[in-house]
Amino acid sequence: MQILTLGPSGTYSEKAAKKWVQKNNPKTEIKLKSSPDEVINQINQNTLGLLPIENSIQGTVLQTIDLLKQKNVKIMDETIIKINHCLIGHSTKNIEVIVSHPQALAQCRNYISNKFPNIETRTTGSTAHAAKLTTEFKNMAAIAPAETAKKYNLKILEKNIQDVKQNQTRFFTLATKDSKPTGNDKTTLIFSVKQQPGTLHKALKPFAKRQINLTKLESRPSRKQLGDYYFIIDFEGHRKQPKIQKAIKELKKHTELIKILGSYPKAQNKNQNTK
Amino acid sequence: MQILTLGPSGTYSEKAAKKWVQKNNPKTEIKLKSSPDEVINQINQNTLGLLPIENSIQGTVLQTIDLLKQKNVKIMDETIIKINHCLIGHSTKNIEVIVSHPQALAQCRNYISNKFPNIETRTTGSTAHAAKLTTEFKNMAAIAPAETAKKYNLKILEKNIQDVKQNQTRFFTLATKDSKPTGNDKTTLIFSVKQQPGTLHKALKPFAKRQINLTKLESRPSRKQLGDYYFIIDFEGHRKQPKIQKAIKELKKHTELIKILGSYPKAQNKNQNTK
Repeated sequence: MQILTLGPSGTYSEKAAKKWVQKNNPKTEIKLKSSPDEVINQINQNTLGLLPIENSIQGTVLQTIDLLKQKNVKIMDETIIKINHCLIGHSTKNIEVIVSHPQALAQCRNYISNKFPNIETRTTGSTAHAAKLTTEFKNMAAIAPAETAKKYNLKILEKNIQDVKQNQTRFFTLATKDSKPTGNDKTTLIFSVKQQPGTLHKALKPFAKRQINLTKLESRPSRKQLGDYYFIIDFEGHRKQPKIQKAIKELKKHTELIKILGSYPKAQNKNQNTK
Repeated sequence: MQILTLGPSGTYSEKAAKKWVQKNNPKTEIKLKSSPDEVINQINQNTLGLLPIENSIQGTVLQTIDLLKQKNVKIMDETIIKINHCLIGHSTKNIEVIVSHPQALAQCRNYISNKFPNIETRTTGSTAHAAKLTTEFKNMAAIAPAETAKKYNLKILEKNIQDVKQNQTRFFTLATKDSKPTGNDKTTLIFSVKQQPGTLHKALKPFAKRQINLTKLESRPSRKQLGDYYFIIDFEGHRKQPKIQKAIKELKKHTELIKILGSYPKAQNKNQNTK
């Protein structure tokens, strides 16, 4: 068995994959790929994938949700890890450029504009790439996990620099099938509603009236036109439970598009809420 | 009267400000600022602001909505403009770096990865900055509006390169007060709901039962923890209409936080839908 995730070595994705492997199947080999497309396209019966889906500051990772909407893979598990961004580089003096993944730059936006008001920022494909690039330029610093500094022989210039200290990212383990019911599961689905007043309200009713906890509701533009959205919801329960099956059946009366992305065991996270 | 928006000269924000000024008050002077904070902090009785709020591909501009949540300004109008991104530069040969605003890069993600699979992308504060920077490097190209090419003496290398051809951005005109009822208005508000099952469903009921059209519903992470959201809704009607006042009063029973960002005349946009 192998699990594919985003490289190079040192990314938060690799960290999440290590956490998943340790907990579930220590013999699984982690392989690092360069894009989410590559990860998803190579999933088969012996190959899993792991991708970031949501960050507590920036919200849904649009690229992952777009791929899940298009491709035929299922969510079989979730893993949550803490994010501690560090500024790493050569010296705090003479920094002219800060590089990192766009999500990491966005999560440290206030820090950057307060400490380095006129600095140039550049994006890289991953936080590990940013660290690697920084080794080549004396005037550069990277935003990356602490471990990366050691790996690339750079100094940790400042720790925990994200704007909101409580910063977590959630990852999905992806496979050809989702998971069997464990008694403590979650289900993720995406849907769009017909364009009539009150349809979203109607779409939520099957869950509200059965006291099914929505742990996430996000809307995303459909990429067609302003005012056209689809919704991503997570709720407690497994798609094979009769209560959940009834709710989904009722939801279908109000949706244009609906895709069940999978049911999977709920991750331990004492900070998670319900809506 | 003056209106502040994001510069330098050649940004889509300047284009939207020109459209607004032409339609409403041709004597208004347009002044270009370098950040959304600067625009919002200088709004007073004689000074308006104009900022992008939403793009049909990328969704809500997080930085603008965060500022509207924090600061004491009101939405008094909306303006919608078409976005036509172009690749501009020196020559299609030898391009090693593509620069632009992060939103523009995101809107051309497929174009870039198909045409320039291994290219480095860098972010700039605006599309106009990207064009300006490109004048200095022969191996660089920028994603920017067509007008910018002429302004900075660069060539248009390819037109209309955004991944979804129908691409619009919506801007808010901001002031110390919102607008008076015109009979064809919209209202924007943000709210968060108490953390109990079914609360979002209950929060939408006051609108659904009165057949009030929601033209937008988006959720954003509260920036506190995973699973904690607030919602941004736009609906048809003015906050001074009795029907709207009743709906908002009822909504308040289910919200933790609620802030009415303003009522304003509805922009002409034949592509806009209702939910």
